[in-house]
Amino acid sequence: MSVASNFRPSGARLWDSLMEFSRIGATAKGGNNRQTLTELDGEARALLQRQAEAAGALLSLDRLGNMALTRPGRDPSRRPVAIGSHLDTQPTGGKFDGVLGVLAGLEILRALDEAGIETEAPVMLINWTNEEGARFSPPMMGSGGAMGIFPEPEVLAKTDSAGAAFGAELARIGWAGSADPAALQGLEAYFELHIEQGPVLERLGLDLGIVTHALAQHWFEVVVTGEEAHGGSSMAGRRDAMMGAAEMMLAIEAAALAAGARATVGRATLHPDSRNVVPGRVWFSLDTRHDDEHKLAALAATLRAEAASIGARRGLSIAVEDFWISPATLFATPLVTRLREAAVARGIAFQEMPTAIGHDAVYCARRVPSVMLFCPCHGGISHNEAESITPAWAEAGLLVMADAVLATAGVARG
Amino acid sequence: MSVASNFRPSGARLWDSLMEFSRIGATAKGGNNRQTLTELDGEARALLQRQAEAAGALLSLDRLGNMALTRPGRDPSRRPVAIGSHLDTQPTGGKFDGVLGVLAGLEILRALDEAGIETEAPVMLINWTNEEGARFSPPMMGSGGAMGIFPEPEVLAKTDSAGAAFGAELARIGWAGSADPAALQGLEAYFELHIEQGPVLERLGLDLGIVTHALAQHWFEVVVTGEEAHGGSSMAGRRDAMMGAAEMMLAIEAAALAAGARATVGRATLHPDSRNVVPGRVWFSLDTRHDDEHKLAALAATLRAEAASIGARRGLSIAVEDFWISPATLFATPLVTRLREAAVARGIAFQEMPTAIGHDAVYCARRVPSVMLFCPCHGGISHNEAESITPAWAEAGLLVMADAVLATAGVARG
Repeated sequence: MSVASNFRPSGARLWDSLMEFSRIGATAKGGNNRQTLTELDGEARALLQRQAEAAGALLSLDRLGNMALTRPGRDPSRRPVAIGSHLDTQPTGGKFDGVLGVLAGLEILRALDEAGIETEAPVMLINWTNEEGARFSPPMMGSGGAMGIFPEPEVLAKTDSAGAAFGAELARIGWAGSADPAALQGLEAYFELHIEQGPVLERLGLDLGIVTHALAQHWFEVVVTGEEAHGGSSMAGRRDAMMGAAEMMLAIEAAALAAGARATVGRATLHPDSRNVVPGRVWFSLDTRHDDEHKLAALAATLRAEAASIGARRGLSIAVEDFWISPATLFATPLVTRLREAAVARGIAFQEMPTAIGHDAVYCARRVPSVMLFCPCHGGISHNEAESITPAWAEAGLLVMADAVLATAGVARG
Repeated sequence: MSVASNFRPSGARLWDSLMEFSRIGATAKGGNNRQTLTELDGEARALLQRQAEAAGALLSLDRLGNMALTRPGRDPSRRPVAIGSHLDTQPTGGKFDGVLGVLAGLEILRALDEAGIETEAPVMLINWTNEEGARFSPPMMGSGGAMGIFPEPEVLAKTDSAGAAFGAELARIGWAGSADPAALQGLEAYFELHIEQGPVLERLGLDLGIVTHALAQHWFEVVVTGEEAHGGSSMAGRRDAMMGAAEMMLAIEAAALAAGARATVGRATLHPDSRNVVPGRVWFSLDTRHDDEHKLAALAATLRAEAASIGARRGLSIAVEDFWISPATLFATPLVTRLREAAVARGIAFQEMPTAIGHDAVYCARRVPSVMLFCPCHGGISHNEAESITPAWAEAGLLVMADAVLATAGVARG
């Protein structure tokens, strides 16, 4: 891989930068509360703009507030090679989720500037608006809006729990731009470094994950309807919605294991919710995921057949309703290859893995050749003030991404 | 059975009386909201007192507000033969739960008075305070306090959700008496007619249930502790508290069926209660009941063994904690026999059955020879404004109870 020998992204400077940004919206427990479209979000955006501009980048701000900070390249025919993530956090978020990817991009701009490297293609740093979805739902509105997943007027009209609209809040904090978000569909490539938000890399003692694809997801709501009865009534005549739901859950677990899928029942409510009343109705959520969306569809069919069979045997109605479906997303093979080569060249221990979690890169991948890198995080803890990583992990992700970005953008031979 | 030929309790008058009382706290949907120690409770109490006194009874009011209305007997050595139940209702209660038993007792006093019958033993009508437990928990405080289950100061100090104390509310509505509640432990016999609150009698086409015993009850709280994980994480490493809870619930159902017991999981909570997070902790309630308290204890041991086995296999901790235990209670065999003879003599179709539900008679049975009769109710619906019975069912219960009360109290041979 051709890397300019004077190109030396600094893990130490990245770490200092992470600590600097973590002071904006710092919480008492060592985390960050820097929710999207707040004054604190504006403060972090302004700091990023100043520092990226100091490294020779120019800001283009779009109508959804997505910040694109571009360092020009030599070849006017080349489209930007982008690095991105998000600066917004959960209400009790950590210091690294999102921010790591943005500041790693900033560090790459700085290292390019410091070395006086002219790239062939422009190198762009993107800060996407509202990745977290904590204040305005759904998550990943900035990237989803730019990539045509969500219509722009719909995004601007979303309101938070206090009734404030996304568009109005964006204008209020002074970060509503005039660029067309859809212009970002023309990127040449998109890279995103993000904390894993899972325990796999740490458990395996690895410093890096190279993300090959995003799992297909199919979320359901299951409603089991039986008949309320007194806890003293004979079991013979019961149509117990909870026992039917329990049997359905175990059938889901068995079918998911058999299919190589992942299935989670994370929420459930019982009606009427009384200790001595047999539930007449149980609702539960179901999140299923698989590498292969065809196998995920087959799992859904299996679960509906199980519901019919369990329902018939127990005198229950078991409705399995779609709640949300997301297709499997493959990241760009050439970019995966380039990351693999960079990791091998650097001697960094990594593995290839899927992301089971949505990220801006997953929406970008629908329009742009995209790829992700995962940084290990302690205990898999994220969306939590206790979220933590090591400087060495952050540096490993930075260096591999930097090398791959430079190889993709190309170094101009002056 | 020796019944005075001029003793003619009237089903029609009982029905009129039920309709009259149902106007006190009537709801728009045809039910009753006459919660304990409200103005409406006081109004119903005053009406009962007036009508019982008109039939020759005298009121003794105890410190818990239990009303004892006694029609004197001939033999000063005999203790009272009592009939009782409760006038209080659930917030969205029906017209018959409790009230039927009190007004059937009133009708027996009226019929005795009308026929000019002098009984050997006194005949007493009791209206117990706070059977429902809806406003002040637990239920059956008046009978439980009188029979020494609950200490009197503890009952008086109980508060409702607004913070009002039982004793203060009793005084406020003017129904705090001075008699010792424990005096009711000296009854010769206690009879209670109550709606079944279950569908068995109606389904069998019977007009009456003679209640032989109360089931033993053992209530538990089960806590399954595993480990939170993201919904995208591999299933291999999961310690999923919900799947462990589901397996435990099915083991409970199977064990209860095998033991001839009844088991109900009526409440459950999942933590952290998020669609895409594997629950780290699930709590659920468990209500088990059996005719035989030894078999119920064996069931508890089986469930604890299942918890240990499922927990070990899944890497979960499953704690099965006692919440409440109530022993099996046998009703008095001579009184059951007397009811059976009365029903046969009247040609009323009945069956003997247990009560799976707590009633004032179950507490009375700990100190006094006691028995219950069940009146069918449509669809087993109770604690509901739609609760309903037929006049013929009410009359069947009235006549059988009246005959047995008179046979127990004895008719003085002037």
